[in-house]
Amino acid sequence: MVVSLRLPLISSLLSPASSRSSNLAFSRRALGISWRHQRQRPPLRFPLLSSPFSPRSSSTNTEIHIDSSKNRVSEGPITPRSQDFNAWYLDVIANAELADYGPVRGTMVIRPYGYAIWEAIQEYLNVKFKETGHENMYFPQFIPYSFIEKEASHVEGFSPELALVTIGGGKELEEKLVVRPTSETIVNHMFTQWIHSHRDLPLMINQWANVTRWEMRTKPFVRTLEFLWQEGHTAHASPEEAEKEAIQMIDIYTKFSYEQAAIPVIAGRKSKVETFAGADKTYTIEAMMGDRKALQAGTSHNLGQNFSRAFGTQFTDENGQRQHVWQTSWAISTRFVGGIIMTHGDDGGLMLPPKLAPIQVVIIPIWKKDGDKAEVLNAASSVKEFLQTAGLKVKLDESDQKTAGWKFNFWEMKGVPLRIEIGPKDVASKSVVISRRDIPGKQGKVFGISMEPSVLEAYVKERLDEIQSSLLQQARTFRDSNIVDVSSYNELKEAISEGKWARGPWSASDQDELRVKEETGATIRCFPFEQPQGPKTCLMTGNPAEEVAIFAKSY
Amino acid sequence: MVVSLRLPLISSLLSPASSRSSNLAFSRRALGISWRHQRQRPPLRFPLLSSPFSPRSSSTNTEIHIDSSKNRVSEGPITPRSQDFNAWYLDVIANAELADYGPVRGTMVIRPYGYAIWEAIQEYLNVKFKETGHENMYFPQFIPYSFIEKEASHVEGFSPELALVTIGGGKELEEKLVVRPTSETIVNHMFTQWIHSHRDLPLMINQWANVTRWEMRTKPFVRTLEFLWQEGHTAHASPEEAEKEAIQMIDIYTKFSYEQAAIPVIAGRKSKVETFAGADKTYTIEAMMGDRKALQAGTSHNLGQNFSRAFGTQFTDENGQRQHVWQTSWAISTRFVGGIIMTHGDDGGLMLPPKLAPIQVVIIPIWKKDGDKAEVLNAASSVKEFLQTAGLKVKLDESDQKTAGWKFNFWEMKGVPLRIEIGPKDVASKSVVISRRDIPGKQGKVFGISMEPSVLEAYVKERLDEIQSSLLQQARTFRDSNIVDVSSYNELKEAISEGKWARGPWSASDQDELRVKEETGATIRCFPFEQPQGPKTCLMTGNPAEEVAIFAKSY
Repeated sequence: MVVSLRLPLISSLLSPASSRSSNLAFSRRALGISWRHQRQRPPLRFPLLSSPFSPRSSSTNTEIHIDSSKNRVSEGPITPRSQDFNAWYLDVIANAELADYGPVRGTMVIRPYGYAIWEAIQEYLNVKFKETGHENMYFPQFIPYSFIEKEASHVEGFSPELALVTIGGGKELEEKLVVRPTSETIVNHMFTQWIHSHRDLPLMINQWANVTRWEMRTKPFVRTLEFLWQEGHTAHASPEEAEKEAIQMIDIYTKFSYEQAAIPVIAGRKSKVETFAGADKTYTIEAMMGDRKALQAGTSHNLGQNFSRAFGTQFTDENGQRQHVWQTSWAISTRFVGGIIMTHGDDGGLMLPPKLAPIQVVIIPIWKKDGDKAEVLNAASSVKEFLQTAGLKVKLDESDQKTAGWKFNFWEMKGVPLRIEIGPKDVASKSVVISRRDIPGKQGKVFGISMEPSVLEAYVKERLDEIQSSLLQQARTFRDSNIVDVSSYNELKEAISEGKWARGPWSASDQDELRVKEETGATIRCFPFEQPQGPKTCLMTGNPAEEVAIFAKSY
Repeated sequence: MVVSLRLPLISSLLSPASSRSSNLAFSRRALGISWRHQRQRPPLRFPLLSSPFSPRSSSTNTEIHIDSSKNRVSEGPITPRSQDFNAWYLDVIANAELADYGPVRGTMVIRPYGYAIWEAIQEYLNVKFKETGHENMYFPQFIPYSFIEKEASHVEGFSPELALVTIGGGKELEEKLVVRPTSETIVNHMFTQWIHSHRDLPLMINQWANVTRWEMRTKPFVRTLEFLWQEGHTAHASPEEAEKEAIQMIDIYTKFSYEQAAIPVIAGRKSKVETFAGADKTYTIEAMMGDRKALQAGTSHNLGQNFSRAFGTQFTDENGQRQHVWQTSWAISTRFVGGIIMTHGDDGGLMLPPKLAPIQVVIIPIWKKDGDKAEVLNAASSVKEFLQTAGLKVKLDESDQKTAGWKFNFWEMKGVPLRIEIGPKDVASKSVVISRRDIPGKQGKVFGISMEPSVLEAYVKERLDEIQSSLLQQARTFRDSNIVDVSSYNELKEAISEGKWARGPWSASDQDELRVKEETGATIRCFPFEQPQGPKTCLMTGNPAEEVAIFAKSY
């Protein structure tokens, strides 16, 4: 019997073959190539910049046909990571059912398994935001075009990537509406109505929302035309308070990255060139992906008085003087899910940190004789019950459409941290077999763990903690072995050409910074908060430097 | 000293005066009048249908100046409910800081206190959806215009109220994009790619999202250009399963309304005329507001095969035959918050059911002598601590800018169910004073409740439960005393002209139904699930009728 498994082979359709070895998102040839690779033949269409919209045929889908007598995917459908990182990434997203392509170029459907990771991110951050005094609210997504124009650098930064509503209710609108790319403008418009005196400050709010940026080069999760995020916005009575808030929020993101996502980000300050359009200072967390590209995984901006001056957001201070408020904004988006995939995943597919995994433990009951089935399923169910009661996220895969081997591969590909196997012999000995996703093969497999609830629960929780730490440790080791300290531009170029990050003292000009980008493809990711001691000499100019900067190619 | 309190007097600016006594949302004269009444003078602009967009000046705001020597709002700013229900509603929303007007006509900013009510709604429903096997996910909000045209009655229903993106990234788009008014079309587009065999069914998903409908007559929460909602979408292998699902979801909404929101909705089936554009059947929960208008508070649609035929959403059944799936969709939106306000509120302002209240208990410490302050605040803090630990949502208002009397009014206006007062004498006697929001004045006030944690906690929890039941009971009594059983069209007209709901047997034509609407302003809200026994005669035609219908004017 032929079972149809819906595993679209995106990577296999990425033709011409030569483009597979370069990273689409950053190859110049790929400019304008959507990540929404057509899955059907005839061959790929390359949407031109002038036709940014090309709906996909709805009726076709590439399927892998599996011979269920073998009951396994013949030739793993996931491109090896080392062979083509980008193809691997797209394959993991498709096969682990994290996301799919929306009908409009560059849009993404976040599927339940991918959305559950986002929900875990939300759950953690939402609590932290409230603990630090922020309240959730919701601003309209339609912003009058004139608002965007009020802050000079803001309009310069965002106007090329706006989606505009020009027709409403069948009529041409008098003023075009911007579908929010970010909300500083409308937030300030409202803040002017709510802020009057110093007693109204600080005003600290957050919203969970969708935003739209008309990106030309898109990639699921990492850069999509529409994405989900939270955006915090605060107003303060002094620049010191605003600065403290901006730092507090990047600290919350940093802690989240290390402790929940097991991603050893480097936190620091953006260069002037890389600062957010409208901010005085931008703080960032930069994560090293498996291909050693940097991912900007979250930012916190000290906006100074740029927006409050543009919008007239003022308060009366304790001396009765009118002053413009000092502001911050900060955001983390569904891009972070891409960061998790590209930090921890391997050739087997996704590998999820236990704290953010939608399923932490999968139970696979194994039986051959029909007579064994009932008692195996019984035991598996009761294990599921008590682990769930203990607060763990557990899935029991009891379907009899697939063999145990197929299920092992499938749930490994989905990145579930722990697998529990229960067969007739295990039932007899009242024990289970446990395998770790992060340690392949026999090394990660332990036999004979007692089925006794308290013992098994403790064992599982300890292993999950170990996996959580181990993922972080592995990523940290990888990161550190791929950052090179450089003291000259030649050394920087060499490090970048090897695909590594370069860290070196920097006090050169914006023009020099742009030259580095031009010549190497690398940008200053940040001036890290953690700085080496001692005097420093700018790698470019030989002048004294205050700080080291980190240069890398990035998503 | 003059303290500026930000309580914009929307109602007071609603001129000409004659329009204040009629309900704006339904007066014909008001067609095209936005609820975004200009708060500043010069006088109101009435946006024409041809200019649906008129950004508001950002710099002005009506303020009430309060003489803090009196320390109370001189003349309550809330229009009495009996005097002008619509003005009262807008005043409550402004004064309780539930929402504000966005800069684009008909859009709404949901402020933290209003958003917290929505979060409480989300929290409950999200759990229920998951318990019944639905998974959250996210679809893009941009839908190719051609999708909307595929289902004939869908395009007819929605095309007049679409917002269209025609420019992206600075370029005119080849195909206009619809900002989702609802997602059936894009959901089906994706379902065709995920559904292949009967083993892929049922497919049951939900998304929390914003939606846009270019409404001409808007009203905060009740009908806004953009609103927040959840939309569930399911696909099934048989019509029976789809029907069962549609019923299950309207049951969940009904239970939610009664048990959480204390709103005694009437659940039933919509008439053909009132059925959702693209559905075979629409189930609804209809709530009676304080002005006795009906509010459609949630709907669940059996979509039959309408969308699956339009989009080709097929599966291979157990016999190897290709069949179109049977579908449902169901939604509750931020409109529900409007329903809560208009069901329970009174002249004092908002009145919130304890289960959805962002603050269930407010503690007001009272002192006159400075020497008393420390011990009063100490006691108040410790009461707050242990009530919070007991899982209650507690606010301690310890500001010394306002008198206790002012705070009483303020938190009553915000609808907080219980107030605890603690003064020096209470500290001495280790007791507190507790007042219920739902029982005004001395009757709702009890002295000498012990401060002992276990006693006070139990007392508070019991009172909250009582308030929850009492609000439901009050709303039920109000509802039942305003539904009239009618057996002729004359009786129906009389009931409607008295502002009541009319319930009577109905088997007349769609044309007759439209005639009733034309002549009385009332529509069939539903054929309630709960039907009287015995033979029935159509109130309009005198023919036999299967069911009674409920007619009412509605929002």
